[in-house]
Amino acid sequence: MLFAVRMDVDIPRDLDPAVREETVAREKAYSQQLQRAGEWRHIWRVVGRYSNISVFDVSSNERLHDILWGLPLFPYMTIEVTPLAAHPSQA
Amino acid sequence: MLFAVRMDVDIPRDLDPAVREETVAREKAYSQQLQRAGEWRHIWRVVGRYSNISVFDVSSNERLHDILWGLPLFPYMTIEVTPLAAHPSQA
Amino acid sequence: MLFAVRMDVDIPRDLDPAVREETVAREKAYSQQLQRAGEWRHIWRVVGRYSNISVFDVSSNERLHDILWGLPLFPYMTIEVTPLAAHPSQA
Amino acid sequence: MLFAVRMDVDIPRDLDPAVREETVAREKAYSQQLQRAGEWRHIWRVVGRYSNISVFDVSSNERLHDILWGLPLFPYMTIEVTPLAAHPSQA
Amino acid sequence: MLFAVRMDVDIPRDLDPAVREETVAREKAYSQQLQRAGEWRHIWRVVGRYSNISVFDVSSNERLHDILWGLPLFPYMTIEVTPLAAHPSQA
Amino acid sequence: MLFAVRMDVDIPRDLDPAVREETVAREKAYSQQLQRAGEWRHIWRVVGRYSNISVFDVSSNERLHDILWGLPLFPYMTIEVTPLAAHPSQA
Amino acid sequence: MLFAVRMDVDIPRDLDPAVREETVAREKAYSQQLQRAGEWRHIWRVVGRYSNISVFDVSSNERLHDILWGLPLFPYMTIEVTPLAAHPSQA
Amino acid sequence: MLFAVRMDVDIPRDLDPAVREETVAREKAYSQQLQRAGEWRHIWRVVGRYSNISVFDVSSNERLHDILWGLPLFPYMTIEVTPLAAHPSQA
Amino acid sequence: MLFAVRMDVDIPRDLDPAVREETVAREKAYSQQLQRAGEWRHIWRVVGRYSNISVFDVSSNERLHDILWGLPLFPYMTIEVTPLAAHPSQA
Amino acid sequence: MLFAVRMDVDIPRDLDPAVREETVAREKAYSQQLQRAGEWRHIWRVVGRYSNISVFDVSSNERLHDILWGLPLFPYMTIEVTPLAAHPSQA
Repeated sequence: MLFAVRMDVDIPRDLDPAVREETVAREKAYSQQLQRAGEWRHIWRVVGRYSNISVFDVSSNERLHDILWGLPLFPYMTIEVTPLAAHPSQA
Repeated sequence: MLFAVRMDVDIPRDLDPAVREETVAREKAYSQQLQRAGEWRHIWRVVGRYSNISVFDVSSNERLHDILWGLPLFPYMTIEVTPLAAHPSQA
Repeated sequence: MLFAVRMDVDIPRDLDPAVREETVAREKAYSQQLQRAGEWRHIWRVVGRYSNISVFDVSSNERLHDILWGLPLFPYMTIEVTPLAAHPSQA
Repeated sequence: MLFAVRMDVDIPRDLDPAVREETVAREKAYSQQLQRAGEWRHIWRVVGRYSNISVFDVSSNERLHDILWGLPLFPYMTIEVTPLAAHPSQA
Repeated sequence: MLFAVRMDVDIPRDLDPAVREETVAREKAYSQQLQRAGEWRHIWRVVGRYSNISVFDVSSNERLHDILWGLPLFPYMTIEVTPLAAHPSQA
Repeated sequence: MLFAVRMDVDIPRDLDPAVREETVAREKAYSQQLQRAGEWRHIWRVVGRYSNISVFDVSSNERLHDILWGLPLFPYMTIEVTPLAAHPSQA
Repeated sequence: MLFAVRMDVDIPRDLDPAVREETVAREKAYSQQLQRAGEWRHIWRVVGRYSNISVFDVSSNERLHDILWGLPLFPYMTIEVTPLAAHPSQA
Repeated sequence: MLFAVRMDVDIPRDLDPAVREETVAREKAYSQQLQRAGEWRHIWRVVGRYSNISVFDVSSNERLHDILWGLPLFPYMTIEVTPLAAHPSQA
Repeated sequence: MLFAVRMDVDIPRDLDPAVREETVAREKAYSQQLQRAGEWRHIWRVVGRYSNISVFDVSSNERLHDILWGLPLFPYMTIEVTPLAAHPSQA
Repeated sequence: MLFAVRMDVDIPRDLDPAVREETVAREKAYSQQLQRAGEWRHIWRVVGRYSNISVFDVSSNERLHDILWGLPLFPYMTIEVTPLAAHPSQA
């Protein structure tokens, strides 16, 4: 089941730089693991923003929530979820 | 070059049914031709809406505008374009 | 899988009264059939509005879209879908 | 009398972790007591958010306000209340 | 139980003038009957708008919805309902 | 002259608790004095919010501004003012 | 008593041209009479819009509403009213 | 050349009280000097807000920007500028 | 004096096709004359929209308003004007 | 390829003044280098705001993102990107 997800990141300026660096690194690893597993199908940077537009392919709403809630940067994100379906014009 | 594009469709109720049917059919053919050509990379239906979220891979802004302007349903659409770039977390 | 769905209805004033009446009756039958089948779990009227807030329990995004797209009043509705998950405070 | 209530939670990052943990635990106990009493009829997590959509069944506006005002997380919440009525399509 | 209700009126320009006049007259009678009965506690005109801000005192959400749904101008109104409670600073 | 006024209160979390308590107490006394004087005609709590909807009956815009500017909680409030007039449907 | 008023005009395209011309002429005469009487203190065109920003000096909210409600173009206007007071920095 | 300018002021609570007082005093002097010079034609307080609506008469956009950028309270203001022109209904 | 201007065009579907064609042609001629005269400095199409972003260099607000008000497509446009000044980083 | 970019700057008040000064200086140098290279085609100040409207001419979305991401003031900016195309009315 597909979902478009937009994540806008806003890391507080006073976060300890080492914590910041380590969190961003964990975020990247977390994301890549899910990409390789096939659940995080696409991730694109939004030009000019600390944001991404992603597409997830998951078994359920529960699974998607668990993935998003577990994002290392989740406390610093605003997330918008749009459920998708197959489009009749799909070639 | 990648762009996320959301299209919200609102066909006027008083459009002649035959014109409507023919226009929707042309829209589908137009979209599928571009999908097969590789420029219209993804198209998904937004659940509960007469809308889609698409991803285009085009050579320029000009090319994207020409494609969108030429959509048979363009006069009945509200279109939002978001330029995308590669994401550093991409696996 | 659960989804909160808000539907705001705006039937055009110049719709033929017989068509209107018949469409509203079909909408009611359609809704009640899905309620009895267990997929349309809750439906409440929003006070002071021609709107409802509903909860659906469906097998997939595709299934939810098919249900909503098939609503007899779909052409006159604005629909907003919110995916839900179990809440850790649920008793 | 039924009300849909959406609660968006934003706990300040600098809240003492022990206080945070204790407040979240009290919130859960408070919610579950009201669920068992039948006044907090439904609670669902909004996917990808620190938010819930709930349905309350209370005797009055006053009672609903007292419940919400007493939430341990109330100082960190934005709350939106929508009064509900029975829907004529209810099966 | 108290509710603040804002009603914004937008009567279509092409409504038959006799129908319009008759509907506005029925609206006034309907409102005044409820005012005398004590359920429609206050009604004020918003300066510069075809709008009112009202306060209702009703026994339930259901009752409020029935009153609003029955307004002769209901099809031409946008209505916003805000549930009220006693304020601790009330003298 | 009547005005609807909505006040949304947001007291900073780090305000000294004694100052907070004293300010809220002064706010209450200030409000009640104006209620008894007849200028602050109504005050209601908005359910689920640290907000009120009030109606003022004052001699001028200047007088209303002086009252609002003098609110002990004014620095922590967002205030929206709507001028009112008599409604032709008033019974 | 002073009020800032913004009026956005949207005359329907299918209004009879003679009616349109006559209405605009009456609007101008109506406005100029109130300007000469001192109640309509200022009127400015918003650059690039069929809109004006005006300042009224009237005896009461009631009087302002009567003036605005009586505008020949009132049915085609969206009006926003902002009550003003003397500013302490006024020279 | 005329411009309507709205300024919403939000002075941080933790600004040193002496600095605050001195800045507000400088703001007043700055404003009054420009009022006497004829460039700051009007200034009104928005009722219930720490805001003003002003009208400037300046020789150019550059001049207006220099004036606004130089406001002692500029760092704490949100400013909205609306270019004005003579209105054909002006008496 | 420079202004950024965004124009969003929405030509009614039922406009006579010949009138539409003629109006669009006049719009183009009107724009090009002003471009050659140096007042309409830039015009760009917004990708995916029937909109443009333009930059004008005019002697006054009055002149800009006259230009915009005189656009053949003005009745079908929503126009937003942003006054510009020289930027200190300009090379 | 052309893009309109609006940048709204909000430098935190508690940033060390020397850091602030140095960052603003680096921003200016960075911008001017790109202006001289022809990629940052225009930059204008928005009157009354700490904002600019710019036009970029770059080879790709990737390039634009790299430029914006590298702005010394990027962490304190909100950036909005609008892809542009040639306009058929261009003279």
